[in-house]
Formats: sequence, structure tokens, C-alpha cells
Amino acid sequence: MQIILLSGGSGTRLWPLSNDARSKQFLRLLPIEGSDDRESMVQRVVRQIREANISAPVTIATAISQQDSIISQLGTEVNLVTEPCRRDTFPAICLASEFLAKVKDCPNDEVVVVMPCDPYTDAGYFQAIGEMAKCVANNVAELVLMGIEPSYPSSKYGYVVPDGKLADGALRVQRFTEKPTVEKAKELIAEGALWNGGVFAFRLGYLLAIAEKYVSGASFEEIRNKYTEFPKISFDYEVAEKAKSVSVVPFSGEWRDLGTWNTLTEELKHSSYGNVTTDGSGSNTHIINELEIPLMCIGTKDLIVAASPDGILVSEKSRSEDIKAFADKLKRRPMYEERRWGEYRVIDFVELPDGFSALTKRLKLNPGCSISYQEHSCRDEVWTFIDGEGEIILNGDRMKVERGMTIHIPKGTRHALRAITSLTFIEVQSGSNLVETDIVRYPLEW
Amino acid sequence: MQIILLSGGSGTRLWPLSNDARSKQFLRLLPIEGSDDRESMVQRVVRQIREANISAPVTIATAISQQDSIISQLGTEVNLVTEPCRRDTFPAICLASEFLAKVKDCPNDEVVVVMPCDPYTDAGYFQAIGEMAKCVANNVAELVLMGIEPSYPSSKYGYVVPDGKLADGALRVQRFTEKPTVEKAKELIAEGALWNGGVFAFRLGYLLAIAEKYVSGASFEEIRNKYTEFPKISFDYEVAEKAKSVSVVPFSGEWRDLGTWNTLTEELKHSSYGNVTTDGSGSNTHIINELEIPLMCIGTKDLIVAASPDGILVSEKSRSEDIKAFADKLKRRPMYEERRWGEYRVIDFVELPDGFSALTKRLKLNPGCSISYQEHSCRDEVWTFIDGEGEIILNGDRMKVERGMTIHIPKGTRHALRAITSLTFIEVQSGSNLVETDIVRYPLEW
Repeated sequence: MQIILLSGGSGTRLWPLSNDARSKQFLRLLPIEGSDDRESMVQRVVRQIREANISAPVTIATAISQQDSIISQLGTEVNLVTEPCRRDTFPAICLASEFLAKVKDCPNDEVVVVMPCDPYTDAGYFQAIGEMAKCVANNVAELVLMGIEPSYPSSKYGYVVPDGKLADGALRVQRFTEKPTVEKAKELIAEGALWNGGVFAFRLGYLLAIAEKYVSGASFEEIRNKYTEFPKISFDYEVAEKAKSVSVVPFSGEWRDLGTWNTLTEELKHSSYGNVTTDGSGSNTHIINELEIPLMCIGTKDLIVAASPDGILVSEKSRSEDIKAFADKLKRRPMYEERRWGEYRVIDFVELPDGFSALTKRLKLNPGCSISYQEHSCRDEVWTFIDGEGEIILNGDRMKVERGMTIHIPKGTRHALRAITSLTFIEVQSGSNLVETDIVRYPLEW
Repeated sequence: MQIILLSGGSGTRLWPLSNDARSKQFLRLLPIEGSDDRESMVQRVVRQIREANISAPVTIATAISQQDSIISQLGTEVNLVTEPCRRDTFPAICLASEFLAKVKDCPNDEVVVVMPCDPYTDAGYFQAIGEMAKCVANNVAELVLMGIEPSYPSSKYGYVVPDGKLADGALRVQRFTEKPTVEKAKELIAEGALWNGGVFAFRLGYLLAIAEKYVSGASFEEIRNKYTEFPKISFDYEVAEKAKSVSVVPFSGEWRDLGTWNTLTEELKHSSYGNVTTDGSGSNTHIINELEIPLMCIGTKDLIVAASPDGILVSEKSRSEDIKAFADKLKRRPMYEERRWGEYRVIDFVELPDGFSALTKRLKLNPGCSISYQEHSCRDEVWTFIDGEGEIILNGDRMKVERGMTIHIPKGTRHALRAITSLTFIEVQSGSNLVETDIVRYPLEW
């Protein structure tokens, strides 16, 4: 058995904590029972898979922009398949399936379970996943879905209508209905319909046959290079609704979408995080401050207050679904990113009328990690080391760096940096064309 | 005639926009009629004095920490007397009076009007000031006060009880009552009592005679050096309540204390300033964002939201008086300061467990202005120039600096900087003891 975890989603619903590089599933906000630490949604789901004694390898399908966050949060515990560009769930699942077949050499009859990484669920959810896999192994159906017992007639979800006869732990699916009206949803629920939870089980060969109608190739890399040839369509439309033999395993436990501030804050252990001062008179207010400057709330009611290097949000809880529309318009570069080598924060950005600009960052490189050997053609960089020890290479010359040292890297200088101990430094970039793509990388052996 | 403007007050009532270096009277928030520019309280009062055709020289008595803000906002239009340390209104007025006598050679019979710089008033207020000066000139009384017509029985103000007989435009004062209960205030108002507006007129010699009971000296500097020998007492207690002949000029026009967010926001022209996004559904919310990152308010009601390099405030309007108590506890260095040479903003501060720290600032030096020739014994500085042209002196060596240059100033290096055109640079300070007092200044002629 193999698990494909879909880690997609744009970053603006939980703005300003989430951004294009840090989608909601990477926010380390969820309490861990019996611990004061917190974990992110992806960390939680991988932990829950292991706690459910599912030993199947996990492959995460994600956008290239999220690759570093996944490595930083999950290390090498999971396989990673990156989509060269954003499309939809069908192409993402095809690519991950091709990876399992061509890189991991999984046989065609291997059972694959695909699941999203963001629902907030309990242990029963993973039991249901085990049952879905068993149904596929027992040839109950070609495709097995998870059906969530609806808690209210929502118009946000897709509905799966079963025929009502349980056989081998699953119900045969009669039809699908996407996002009905509330009235229609009430009728569907009366009929016994379930929400489509976006969890699917099938044999690898079943999906590969569908994938290869669009793209085929000898190697995974070849298929990945043709990724845009896959249609931009969801797995539901392309596979589930066309499948001849579909069953659904019902699940009635905890299943929540923590995709808005209002639903997320319900799961938080504390009402404030970070450098926060309150007068104690507020009510139903959640405050998250990722900045170092103090945040003070006096007499606030029914509010979400969140501050990060990307911005500051003050929202009535009941309106927190509206944030996305406004956040999408802000279109700014991420001011904080978790990278495979550590993390950085933009602390200042100045852009002058003539286009010359300066970007100041504070970076932290984890011990043993390094930044690639690179060169910029349009910008100078000045690094002032604040803490730790490392090694730097400038145009081939190697030297030790440590606290108190300042290194000037004029444009056109090849440079690399490796942390011996945890290395903190301030970087001032300046130039007339400060774009992320102004970088040429060279091979280097440390 | 001479005007002494008292510019005191600590900075926390309008936190986070005000701080120890930027008291409320320096916030450029007030609309200027017929203009889109905004002005601060001190700028407004000096403009109003001039518009009332009062041509008397203005001397501002202030704390040394506010000196640079005053020079930056008012230039050389006013005289400046700085108190070596914070005491109270009586010592401040004595010191300013000694300045008028000993530095400006004012005669003993010169009429002096003392006024606070922060009430929000109309033109009638300055007419009343003219009448007060006339009363002193006509020897109606030794001391003439302004009495504000009370608009409600406040327990926050001092009351002046006149005897009710108007003579030469003034009423004789019968007695004073400091901060009565609301009940008592009602009785006082029924008796015809007025609020003590903190505006006083007298002849210079009158006050000098009282001042010299405590401190005397041949020169202003000598008296300033003995400043702590003045008792720490208000002018009301030490002078007004003991005076034998006191009159009051009533004033019934606009007179408001904009000392809290709630009262200040009533005077603002717009409901939001800076990089602010709202969904349009909020009501009675004022938002001021001095940071560059976006601030988004969704569905907010009756709130004040203010963000500055010093911190972020979200407060119910009706509770905005409570801010001071909490802000006083935060005790952080000011993150933004207006200086005589320009301005700076702290963009980052890191303090490591062993005490080593790094402070990163963005500074702007105005054309022609310079930073003194100085040396630090505990910190290195790295300056990266972003815009403009200037001249730097390092251990006696002079050189031009401009956009794109980086200058490393190790501890023990004497350095000075002068802006030719407006000069913007990023400064990274690092060392084991980053204190403001780690500075030795040397004389320098540019």
C-alpha cells in the first residue's frame, strides 16, 4: 500500500500567516496532546498515519514553491513529488502515481490511497482509510471513496449518493452531485448522501491506464516534463464520476476544514500566541503575533488579530471567510519563508522612484546546511554575521566566517555559505533589479 | 511680550504612535484646513499663534529627549530651552524665564505668557491670550490665568473660582480647587467656576523673584546646571495658589485635550492612514498604519487600530484611556525617532543569550545635515548606502559615499557623515553592549 498526500492550496485564506510559500497546512499552530509543542496540519496528518499503524510509504504531491517547507517540517520521512506548475488534482495524482510506478517500482496491483493533508480528523478517519484499502485489495470496486457523514446541509461540498446496501464494508455509489443548493442538500441527506471527503483508493495500474491516455513516457522525468499536457481537471470529474465501479466507505467521526480563521481558532489551545498584551476585558478574541514588536489588545470582542512579516489582520470572526478576496489583491512577495536550509525574514524593503531598491533580510542557516554556490548579476549583497560559525566560498576562495564579520559580495561574485553551527546573519541586498530569478547556480562540493 | 510653550508629557497615552522620543504633540496627524498635509499639535499651536497676529517670540521648554523632534518640526522659528531632566511645570517655567532674562536680555517688566502645546483650540483662545497679556500690562493683577468654560462636571481638571465681578476684561480669583469629585464639580460650576487651562501671564520679574528663592546664578548655564535644586512642584501649587493678586480671563470656545486615542480620532479627517485595506463593512473604526506591511480590517466596529515600528494596538474606542497603563509596562527603546538631522527606524533587533546583539536601522539624513564625529568602543557598524550622496570621515580620512557603497566601521573608528543630497542607508550595529551611551564625540569642521 502507498499513500499519496495532496498538499496544494494557495496561501491567502489564513493571511497574513499564510502566503504563497507557506500555505495553511504549514502553520505550526495545532496543539499536540500531552505536549506544549505545536504542529502544522501536514505534520499532524503524517503523525496520525503513523499512530494508526499504517506503515505504507507516504508520497507528498506538492507545488515546487512548497518543497522547502515540506523538507523542513517532515525531513526525509516522506517522498516528494513536485508539480512543475499548478494544475489540478487529476494531474497531481497522475504525476505522483507515475513516480510510484517509475521511481519506486511499485507494481500495477499496488493499492494506493490518495488523501488531502488539511482536514482536521480523529483516529477513526485513518481506520476508514484502512478499510478503503482493504476494499480495493478485495476487488469490491475499482475505486473506493471516503464518504463523510454530513453534519449540516452544506452547499460547499460534493455529495456522494450510495445505493444504501452495505457490502464488504462499503456502499455502492449510485451518483455524484457537486455543490448543491442548501435545499437540494437537504434532500440528498434525506436520501442518505455523504460528503465526498477527497480520499480515494485504487490500484496503481487503474490510474496509470487513465493517465496514459494523456501523457506517456519511458521515465518519470519525461512525464514530468510533459506535465502541462495533462488536462486541468479535478480527480472527481475525470476519474470518480466516470468510473464504472465505485464504492464508498462511510465515516462519521471528526472531520473539519480548518481553512478559515474562524474554524482554525476553534482548535487552538490558547487565545494568544507571541508577544501579546491584553487588558483581560476582551472576549472571544484570538491573537497571534509572529512579529517581535508588541501587540496590545484592549477590550476586543469576537476578533481575530494576526500579525506576521507579511501583514496585520484585524477581522471579525464571523467575517473571516472574506479575507481571501482582499488578501489576493495585495500580491506582495512572501516576507517569511521556511527553507530546507533554515529560514529567513524580510525586515525591510525600500524601493526608490528610479527602481533602485534595497531588501534587508535576517537569515538563519541550520547546522550543516548550506546555500548553493551562486552568482547574481544585478545585485550586491552585504552579510553581517551575528551568531554561529560557518564557511564561505567567494570566487573559489574558502574562508571561515563567524560572529562580528562582514562580507561584501559585489554583483558577479560567486558565493556559497555553509553553517558549521547555527548561523544567523543580516543580509542587505541592493541593486536596480532585485528579482528572485537573478541567480545562476554552480556545482560545488563542500 | 514673550511666549513660553510647555512641551512636556510622556509618550504612552497614544502608544504605539507615541514613544519617549515622540510625545503626542509631535504626531503629524491633524488636518490643516484647505490642505491635504497634516500637522502635529506643536506645529498647529505655533501656526495658530502666528495667525492670531501675535508676533511675540516663542520659547519652547522641553525635555532634552524632545529637542530633535522640535528642531525637525519647527526649525529655527522658536527658541529652545531644554530641561536637563524631567521635573515639573514650576521648574520648567523658571528655567525658560531665566533664559529670557539672561540669554535674550528681556527686561523685568516684559509680559510673559506660558501655555501648554497640546490643547486643540480655536482662534478665540489666542484672542483670550492677547487679553491676558493686556491685563498684565495694565497691572490688573500680578498673575492672570485663562479660565475655560466647563462643558461638563469633570473630575480631571483644576477649577478656578472667580468672585464674579468682571473688571478690565478679567475676573478676580477667589480660590482654586484641584480635581474635585463630580458632585463637588457640579457645585463649583453652579458657583461660576472655570477650568484652569494651564495658561498664565505675568511680568518676567515677578517669576524671577520666586525662582531666585531656590536657585540663582550669574548665567543661564549656571542656573541650568543647578536645575535639580528647583522643587519638583507644579506652577499651580507653587505660584498660582500662593499669588496675592490673581485674575482670570474666561474663554468659552473650543478647547479639547486630544490626549487619548478616542478624543484624537474625533479630529481626524480620514478613517484610515497608511497601507490599509478594509472591506467597507466596518463602522466607527480608525486605522493608522505607519508600517510598510499591509494592515487589513474586516468588519471592525468601534475600534482604534494603530501600527508603528513600536508596536500594534487594537483597542475598543471607549477603553482607549486604559492603554497607558499597559504601554508603560512594555518599556522598549523607541523604534522610530525624528532627529535634527533626519529620521531613523529600527527594522530589526536580535539579542542572543550571551548578550551579543545586532540592531539594524534604516536612516535618512537630510541634505546638508550631518552626524557628529563619533566613536563607539563596543560596537561595529556597517553602513550600506541606498540613495543619495554624502561625505564620510573615517579616522581623519575623507571620502565621498553614494548609492551602492558599503562602509565597515569597526569599534574604535572615529567616523562622521554628512549628506550632500538626501542620504538613505541601512546600518547594522553589532556588539556585546549595544547601548545608546556607547559614544564619544569629537569636534569637527566640515
